[in-house]
Amino acid sequence: MLEQLKEEVCQANLDLVKHGLVTLTWGNASGISEDREHVVIKASGVSYDELQQKHMVVVDLEGNVIEGSLRPSSDTPTHVLLYRNFKTIGGITHTHSRYATIFAQARQDIPCLGTTHADHFYGSVPVTRPLTEEEVNDAYEVNTGQVIVERFAELDPVAMPAVLVAGHAPFVWGPTPGKSVDNAIALEAVAEMALGVRQLVTDPLPLEAYVLDKHFLRKHGPDAYYGQVPDSDP
Amino acid sequence: MLEQLKEEVCQANLDLVKHGLVTLTWGNASGISEDREHVVIKASGVSYDELQQKHMVVVDLEGNVIEGSLRPSSDTPTHVLLYRNFKTIGGITHTHSRYATIFAQARQDIPCLGTTHADHFYGSVPVTRPLTEEEVNDAYEVNTGQVIVERFAELDPVAMPAVLVAGHAPFVWGPTPGKSVDNAIALEAVAEMALGVRQLVTDPLPLEAYVLDKHFLRKHGPDAYYGQVPDSDP
Amino acid sequence: MLEQLKEEVCQANLDLVKHGLVTLTWGNASGISEDREHVVIKASGVSYDELQQKHMVVVDLEGNVIEGSLRPSSDTPTHVLLYRNFKTIGGITHTHSRYATIFAQARQDIPCLGTTHADHFYGSVPVTRPLTEEEVNDAYEVNTGQVIVERFAELDPVAMPAVLVAGHAPFVWGPTPGKSVDNAIALEAVAEMALGVRQLVTDPLPLEAYVLDKHFLRKHGPDAYYGQVPDSDP
Amino acid sequence: MLEQLKEEVCQANLDLVKHGLVTLTWGNASGISEDREHVVIKASGVSYDELQQKHMVVVDLEGNVIEGSLRPSSDTPTHVLLYRNFKTIGGITHTHSRYATIFAQARQDIPCLGTTHADHFYGSVPVTRPLTEEEVNDAYEVNTGQVIVERFAELDPVAMPAVLVAGHAPFVWGPTPGKSVDNAIALEAVAEMALGVRQLVTDPLPLEAYVLDKHFLRKHGPDAYYGQVPDSDP
Repeated sequence: MLEQLKEEVCQANLDLVKHGLVTLTWGNASGISEDREHVVIKASGVSYDELQQKHMVVVDLEGNVIEGSLRPSSDTPTHVLLYRNFKTIGGITHTHSRYATIFAQARQDIPCLGTTHADHFYGSVPVTRPLTEEEVNDAYEVNTGQVIVERFAELDPVAMPAVLVAGHAPFVWGPTPGKSVDNAIALEAVAEMALGVRQLVTDPLPLEAYVLDKHFLRKHGPDAYYGQVPDSDP
Repeated sequence: MLEQLKEEVCQANLDLVKHGLVTLTWGNASGISEDREHVVIKASGVSYDELQQKHMVVVDLEGNVIEGSLRPSSDTPTHVLLYRNFKTIGGITHTHSRYATIFAQARQDIPCLGTTHADHFYGSVPVTRPLTEEEVNDAYEVNTGQVIVERFAELDPVAMPAVLVAGHAPFVWGPTPGKSVDNAIALEAVAEMALGVRQLVTDPLPLEAYVLDKHFLRKHGPDAYYGQVPDSDP
Repeated sequence: MLEQLKEEVCQANLDLVKHGLVTLTWGNASGISEDREHVVIKASGVSYDELQQKHMVVVDLEGNVIEGSLRPSSDTPTHVLLYRNFKTIGGITHTHSRYATIFAQARQDIPCLGTTHADHFYGSVPVTRPLTEEEVNDAYEVNTGQVIVERFAELDPVAMPAVLVAGHAPFVWGPTPGKSVDNAIALEAVAEMALGVRQLVTDPLPLEAYVLDKHFLRKHGPDAYYGQVPDSDP
Repeated sequence: MLEQLKEEVCQANLDLVKHGLVTLTWGNASGISEDREHVVIKASGVSYDELQQKHMVVVDLEGNVIEGSLRPSSDTPTHVLLYRNFKTIGGITHTHSRYATIFAQARQDIPCLGTTHADHFYGSVPVTRPLTEEEVNDAYEVNTGQVIVERFAELDPVAMPAVLVAGHAPFVWGPTPGKSVDNAIALEAVAEMALGVRQLVTDPLPLEAYVLDKHFLRKHGPDAYYGQVPDSDP
């Protein structure tokens, strides 16, 4: 079942390696079916060197395995909780990519310091609060999703397709698995540059709000004018 | 039309990827025809993985598409404005390369701290002022070019083939598209090293003016003695 | 003799290069036979470009060469001493990988700042005391092992599979040669991120003890639930 | 003439690229003939993508071209001056490799902070004084060599096979062209790590003198015991 989605999710996982976002097995990408009833996700602990479509696991929105005998990624409960709460997203990527994780470990938002950031993230990329001891000991991965959802109480996951889990690492999403990988690549780049700016300026100037508006909105939403029109054939 | 220039511009765009200056689709290179009536530039938002000569778009010096059905890079108005004002340049490269962009986001010139810098840039690489809200909301890309031209009121674009747009990223140029890529590679290297020097010395010594003269002029202008004489066949 | 172990150790050495942990000949991996009577280790000073199984040397637990005419790695006395003292380990990797070595040279433990660290190392990665002049001049490599063993007086080498030798570089181990390489890769990643965090926060918060417990124990020991069950076929 | 040396020097130049020490054309390696009457060096400004043995130029110890029609590297006068003064060296490598150049631009010695450094360089890697205006304007490249020789008045080029020219970049040497490249690789690694240590510790502890002795002397000189004995066949 869901062979096309499996292919797309498998490719997204392989692209994480290609773009240097994954070390060892620290990462996973998933996608949700069009009817939003099933999620395809990488099996747990499988080496990326051997990763094939058959290592994709189908689960329902409670995280129960629907097809196959492999265990899904241990982060599956986080993914499905995000899909249940963020109805507009189609793919999720989780990595421990270096620079985004540095900000997660420093427990700091990634401030918007330039147009690269503004092209992808509409404001500072937020960091969650730490989980409590109870949240960690009881359904840790579900609660990881819960603190993300809590952090997004007043944020739109379309305008802000990434979060840093405090002391852990980023979760990133998008309309498709492939787009969630693109956003993970963008997040890593803006995190690296934000760290560099902090080495030159202790308290750097955030990008002007009107430039943020301009850049995000020229790429996203009804007035976008970046890229090709949908029926062109570049 | 302009098939040779298209090939040259396509190659320049591919070289950006080869040298690690481009992430996702964040970059573009262009070239101007010998009669300075047409500019060839990359199409907007095309993946570098699939980039071919047919994705090169021909525009006039107002930015109107002259050939083909693809939209040109959204930065096209900036490129053509620079070609109109800097009559001596033949190619332009725009990237969000990491270290040059860090300085653009920190809104700091890149100081000349060594001979690597002096071999390519005759003094500090300048950063523009930020655009005003009006400039951003009305013809943003044209005004990006305007603040660059304003910043070069007393600078020679041959002696200083690069600029940092504040809060954005570098624009770099040269006598040909390929040479503008070389300068973008050099800019990234000197930015990376300037950031490193700043980690060792809070207020580093600029390169002595007489060394700057020596290095820039042994590579550029009538008394250059670097490289092979034009009729040799290395 | 021990052809399978030689193959495994040779592959571990080659994997060090593949993962960018080794410059020139600065590194070596070894493995111990099941009966814990012989150790297979890379020959000294052999170029990684030419490394083959025949360059693996068999020594006994005193470091005497048992098979072949090549000199074993000059670090052999350190390896065998660790095998004699840490009865639960099956492979050892020594590198001068950049970031782990930076902490060794700074003579600082690598603090546990995030779950990436907690997944592999159960607490701060310790640094040894410096060797005394006598220890250096008399049986230097043996004494390098001795200061490691001394540092582990109250540490479990299974829970903490790495150490930094002050002013030198890391030694890392695991149940097999391949797992020791995985731990060396993980160590380098957490060292790089810890250095980055230190650039954002002078005195970063260590990971909460209950998150450290959760992460280490979900991957290690009887209650682990990460990866596939042993008889699955991913 | 000197075909074997040309091959060796050509390979050394190509190895600079392979090991990431060269950007654009910023670098060159040379070697001296056994009778110390001729030097083989890369031609000036030739792209590394096209570099072949025929681009190697033979000069005498005054820098006069003895064979071929190509201009030798513009740094040739520096190379030949070093060969004339340092009688024990057989190859020289000049690069603008990132981290070594950062120290050259910061005009700081690279302190010996660990055994990686001690294995290759017997003490701090020295930086020269800046050249005077007269020295720059009159025979710049010769005088670059002179300030190096001046800096080595009390240093042995065998024990210290590298120097940083202030505001410029490193020159590195060794008994052969290939060994000078190895030393350039080592220099870049120790410079990168020294910069990292400085981010953790403002004033890091130098390596103990007795460890420096131990490491340098176990690899160099009559009591060396690293690597294979000369007649072994690893």
